[in-house]
Amino acid sequence: MKLCTTVQEMRQERAQLGRVGFVPTMGFLHEGHLSLVRRAREETDAVVVSLFVNPIQFGSADDLANYPRALERDIALLRREGVACVFTPEAAEFYPEGFATQVDVGGVALELEGPSRPGHFAGVATVLAKFFNIIQPQRAYFGQKDAQQCAVVQRFVRDLNIPVDIVTLPTWREADGLAGSSRNSRLTEAERHRAPVLHQALCRGRTLVQAGERRRAVLEGAMRDVLVQAGLVDIDYVTIVNPDTFQAEEEVREGALALLAVQLGAVRLIDNMPLF
Amino acid sequence: MKLCTTVQEMRQERAQLGRVGFVPTMGFLHEGHLSLVRRAREETDAVVVSLFVNPIQFGSADDLANYPRALERDIALLRREGVACVFTPEAAEFYPEGFATQVDVGGVALELEGPSRPGHFAGVATVLAKFFNIIQPQRAYFGQKDAQQCAVVQRFVRDLNIPVDIVTLPTWREADGLAGSSRNSRLTEAERHRAPVLHQALCRGRTLVQAGERRRAVLEGAMRDVLVQAGLVDIDYVTIVNPDTFQAEEEVREGALALLAVQLGAVRLIDNMPLF
Repeated sequence: MKLCTTVQEMRQERAQLGRVGFVPTMGFLHEGHLSLVRRAREETDAVVVSLFVNPIQFGSADDLANYPRALERDIALLRREGVACVFTPEAAEFYPEGFATQVDVGGVALELEGPSRPGHFAGVATVLAKFFNIIQPQRAYFGQKDAQQCAVVQRFVRDLNIPVDIVTLPTWREADGLAGSSRNSRLTEAERHRAPVLHQALCRGRTLVQAGERRRAVLEGAMRDVLVQAGLVDIDYVTIVNPDTFQAEEEVREGALALLAVQLGAVRLIDNMPLF
Repeated sequence: MKLCTTVQEMRQERAQLGRVGFVPTMGFLHEGHLSLVRRAREETDAVVVSLFVNPIQFGSADDLANYPRALERDIALLRREGVACVFTPEAAEFYPEGFATQVDVGGVALELEGPSRPGHFAGVATVLAKFFNIIQPQRAYFGQKDAQQCAVVQRFVRDLNIPVDIVTLPTWREADGLAGSSRNSRLTEAERHRAPVLHQALCRGRTLVQAGERRRAVLEGAMRDVLVQAGLVDIDYVTIVNPDTFQAEEEVREGALALLAVQLGAVRLIDNMPLF
């Protein structure tokens, strides 16, 4: 497994590889990331994984500083998975003095996480555009856990005609239902114990839909009750959207997606689930 | 010479070509464009020219509607130049319903033409990002006449790590000094007669610099006088900037660039000249 830390090294290494599957990550890998790596190995000649905590997608310096890191462990994990190349660029090379470009996405990026995290999706789209241009992968792999991010990536890749197939894989979950996230490591033991209630709230919504309920307000209220009854009251949003627009509609329809974002102690957790 | 009108056709055609030199144009070709094509032919295996009046870089529907077009003539000219492929995408395919992405450039893009033409550089950067992703040229050719555009393109290509070399060639001028521009065709005969005064104003600035003048205010005043004395009073800007920042400095220094933008009847003309 090759380790690249500069853009030039990465370009040289890429030229040796055939069809590349790319898994962009911010490191502190969990089973969700590894499920993406395994799928990429099946579908392409060589897997490239980036480990880069992208400063421009964080709203606060505090959140950036507190993002968990475990570079040596991540590299060991990826070596075991048969990854061809790990790319760990330096922020100073990625965003040198005078850097002045941003990939701005409208549409789906303006909903939910958009206003909650100003600049976040522009930061994600900008760093991914850079990675796609450097690594030139045939496919790139993302987890459905960040459902809105997946929609944003699909949008700008299509709009800018970037020649990469975006593959979205199902959310990997712990045995108790908690969606895999690097941020989970920052939960206290008590918070970790309560965290699966996010998944339970989504399941409650799906159960009601299966029973025939279609009124969004009723479904959202039921999901919110599950959170509140478990003591999770710092709720950013609980909603159900049309997955093409990420906008809410009065009556939920085939394909509708339930999403929530909740603050649990120092950590903001998100999760989502298709209701049909 | 192959004509491509869809993204898919263009991608298929590109796969047959070797090292590609790309000349993006809005059509209504003049000798300036052809000088870019000739250089591209010398330096690459195959030349691709786009003819596309890009709607998203126009501030007003009026300016867009009035932009001159001569598709058949352009194609005939390019055939004679040994161009491998002409790409004339449809706006409806380039910007379909739901299109929501913009490449926003700061820094140099925020000066001069930036505030004068809101959204212009974002429109230019966005369409070029699309062309670069579809055509994947090794080199792309631009005229120095649009000096600030050249700086904006260099900026976002570098920031997004787009694997293309940007080549800038000197401004092509008519015998009387007028810089080649498709917009010149919209000048009346009387206006065309007065238009070379833009070049004369720039030459006046350069002459003064050669004589030792370094005070920007004095130089700008002298250039402005040349315009006003010729009756060109609808001046958007006459300035001298540091070419790295496109910002004005009190004392002009080695490398300084004089730029002007003047309204002449229905047409807004720009021109520029290095002062050293």
